[in-house]
Amino acid sequence: MPNRQKNYTIGIDIGGTKMLAVLFDGEKALADYTLATPKDNLEHFLIMMDALLEPLTDRARADKVKIKGIGLGVAGVIDYNKKIVLKSPNIPIIDGIDFASKLEGKIGLPVAIDNDANCFCRTEALAGAGIKYKNIYGIIIGTGIGGAWWINNGIYLGAHGGAGEPGQMIIDFNDMIGLEAAYHKLTQHNPAQLAEEAYRGDVLAEKVYAELGNLLGTAFANIANLIDPEIFIIGGGAVESSDLFLSNIKKTMKENIISSEAKKIKVVKSKLGEQAGAIGAALLVK
Amino acid sequence: MPNRQKNYTIGIDIGGTKMLAVLFDGEKALADYTLATPKDNLEHFLIMMDALLEPLTDRARADKVKIKGIGLGVAGVIDYNKKIVLKSPNIPIIDGIDFASKLEGKIGLPVAIDNDANCFCRTEALAGAGIKYKNIYGIIIGTGIGGAWWINNGIYLGAHGGAGEPGQMIIDFNDMIGLEAAYHKLTQHNPAQLAEEAYRGDVLAEKVYAELGNLLGTAFANIANLIDPEIFIIGGGAVESSDLFLSNIKKTMKENIISSEAKKIKVVKSKLGEQAGAIGAALLVK
Repeated sequence: MPNRQKNYTIGIDIGGTKMLAVLFDGEKALADYTLATPKDNLEHFLIMMDALLEPLTDRARADKVKIKGIGLGVAGVIDYNKKIVLKSPNIPIIDGIDFASKLEGKIGLPVAIDNDANCFCRTEALAGAGIKYKNIYGIIIGTGIGGAWWINNGIYLGAHGGAGEPGQMIIDFNDMIGLEAAYHKLTQHNPAQLAEEAYRGDVLAEKVYAELGNLLGTAFANIANLIDPEIFIIGGGAVESSDLFLSNIKKTMKENIISSEAKKIKVVKSKLGEQAGAIGAALLVK
Repeated sequence: MPNRQKNYTIGIDIGGTKMLAVLFDGEKALADYTLATPKDNLEHFLIMMDALLEPLTDRARADKVKIKGIGLGVAGVIDYNKKIVLKSPNIPIIDGIDFASKLEGKIGLPVAIDNDANCFCRTEALAGAGIKYKNIYGIIIGTGIGGAWWINNGIYLGAHGGAGEPGQMIIDFNDMIGLEAAYHKLTQHNPAQLAEEAYRGDVLAEKVYAELGNLLGTAFANIANLIDPEIFIIGGGAVESSDLFLSNIKKTMKENIISSEAKKIKVVKSKLGEQAGAIGAALLVK
């Protein structure tokens, strides 16, 4: 974590299902507030952003501390120069929208923007499960699947800002099905309900989660054979039910890593839980 | 290329089908010599290594120039600390063998060892098709499929030396088939003969090559979505018939890259041809 600062920052994690905002004092979240992500139209989306910010700006006012800026972590591909969301598969209403600038104009505060998985991975690397490591792949398993790679003290963005994305990874060449699509197909877009069923002893739901472990383990091996990190950190909604599939991830990953040394790669759960993404977004504000 | 040096070095590219050795003066290959890779037993393998070195050491003697050392580029996973070939899928007789040390003891010259795709990529980055780029993924399509990533002025090895390997990438989750296995299945372990048939107008062979382009394009997209390089450089035996599949690689790759910016990634052929791997091995000698 950075040193204590005199100002607060706000971080908003904009996921495919919910938006979570934190008021951040440079060390910890003082308050957080969650709303469902509007998906009908952009106007509604922007109104809900306002609603999300209000209780946090109120709190800052009560503390008599200025808010220095806002960081957004968005589930999608970002154009970092133009601060535009290029493509958000699970929130298509914001595709191509420069809503960081829109928000800046409206609120009069600097707004930074980044991919949500980048934000998640940054927090876990600096203050979470990755604090002892230098080469970390963070993966969010929630509404969709996002990922980011922390190396050389930062998120690796690639030559065109397109790096770190696991969702499109084709794992079924015959039908050209990517990892995220296979995840949706397996969990029927409702992993939480499926987990409930599995915990209640539904054998079919248990099998689906076992298969999900194999699917993710395969993807982890594909990632490991290319970038060979020290550790994978798993975040997102699925973390809560990770005991249903974590052992299968590890098993399938090991079986498909070619280097015997790289089979030692660790797989752990997020330490900072559901605030990790929003804190990582708050850390964007310099 | 490094500056002209007073000594020669030897580089040997040990592939799944042939071994190619070069006598290298620091700028170019003065001579090269090729033999089939022995696959029956280690003793035969080591005898053939000697046979490979002989004409080159003769030439150095004639030039009255000392040989400073030997670099080996091996199609397999290397333990860089122990200088051991951990696993070579296409030359299993050298699995677990410290034949760099064996060779050192025999010849009395320092022997360095590296993965063959790393050697290929190093040469192309420093003196070949990648000379204008800083973020390069090199892929060898020959007996098997190997790859390496050049970034930050060197080959990226990963946390455990297991990075850059595309061959095991699972592209068929249902049957757990990796890229290399799918390549073997498509080309029936004989891509050269298949290419001949395609050039003679055999429609089935043409179709197989089109499908190979789609397969490789899918793998390139999977790699691009993770590491987003500036350029892919293709080497290995298949380069000679790349007009049969290069356009399909590019098309399928673009279709499956998620970031619109990263769709700009270039795909080109090796510039230094079949000597690239051996020169990259010679460059290992410091």
